[in-house]
Amino acid sequence: QGQIVKPLNISKPSKMVRDIESKPVIITHPTDPVKEVALKLVENNINHLPVVDSRGKLAGIVTSWDIADAVARGKTKLEEVMTRKVIIAREDESVDIIARRIDKNNISGLPIVDKDSKVKGMITAEDISRLIGKK
Amino acid sequence: QGQIVKPLNISKPSKMVRDIESKPVIITHPTDPVKEVALKLVENNINHLPVVDSRGKLAGIVTSWDIADAVARGKTKLEEVMTRKVIIAREDESVDIIARRIDKNNISGLPIVDKDSKVKGMITAEDISRLIGKK
Ligand SMILES: C[S@@+](CC[C@H](N)C(=O)[O-])C[C@H]1O[C@@H](n2cnc3c(N)ncnc32)[C@H](O)[C@@H]1O
Repeated sequence: QGQIVKPLNISKPSKMVRDIESKPVIITHPTDPVKEVALKLVENNINHLPVVDSRGKLAGIVTSWDIADAVARGKTKLEEVMTRKVIIAREDESVDIIARRIDKNNISGLPIVDKDSKVKGMITAEDISRLIGKK
Repeated sequence: QGQIVKPLNISKPSKMVRDIESKPVIITHPTDPVKEVALKLVENNINHLPVVDSRGKLAGIVTSWDIADAVARGKTKLEEVMTRKVIIAREDESVDIIARRIDKNNISGLPIVDKDSKVKGMITAEDISRLIGKK
């Protein structure tokens, strides 16, 4: 088929995770009720929340998809639906690398974590899509 | 600050919406129970579902975020939580334009709709992020 092939209109510097506009980190705890977590997602207009243990370290991730899972399977505790094996991002990684990680793992957001497993923020497919959108 | 500025490692042709690898369209109806919609999202491992009326035309959109909203507010009917004013994509639009639309409206996916309001597919921030990831 006669496809029109134009160069992509992108000429921005390669971004690092730390250059992504960061929002305040909102967290949740493993013992939180699903209903409370749902409210937190909705009130903050977000899709992802890092789950943090009592020492402040990353213990999992919960997304609105997990809330749908809780509804579908009738679960009420966050512990029952959160994902424990979290795929993370580091501040000194490039956004290209994170885009590939998102694709490879079929996920939509990663907690940004420092060397002590403390959560610094979130990076999402929306954040990356925004780099294409804003130019 | 002494930021390192490298050219973005992207040199792909400008993609159109119709070039995005399309998955089979899964739909839902306004009268579906929230629990059933949640199950559909989870079983298909997706976050967005177009809501289609009895004539097969786009009537709204529901995302896992709306399921979280249903949980938070105790709603059980899709009609109560779906979004009726849908921001859409056309097959002949460029992916750059869609990326900007996603950003501007703080959403993560758009139904791809033809001239008769028939749903042809979905395009999401993940699909666009994938274009950066795969190169
Ligand atoms: C505003 S977003 C907030 C969370 C996050 N930014 C996201 O994109 O999912 C959530 C709301 O946007 C709505 N929404 C998602 N895609 C939409 C679209 N293409 N047109 C209109 N509303 C949409 C959903 O129905 C939901 O109520």
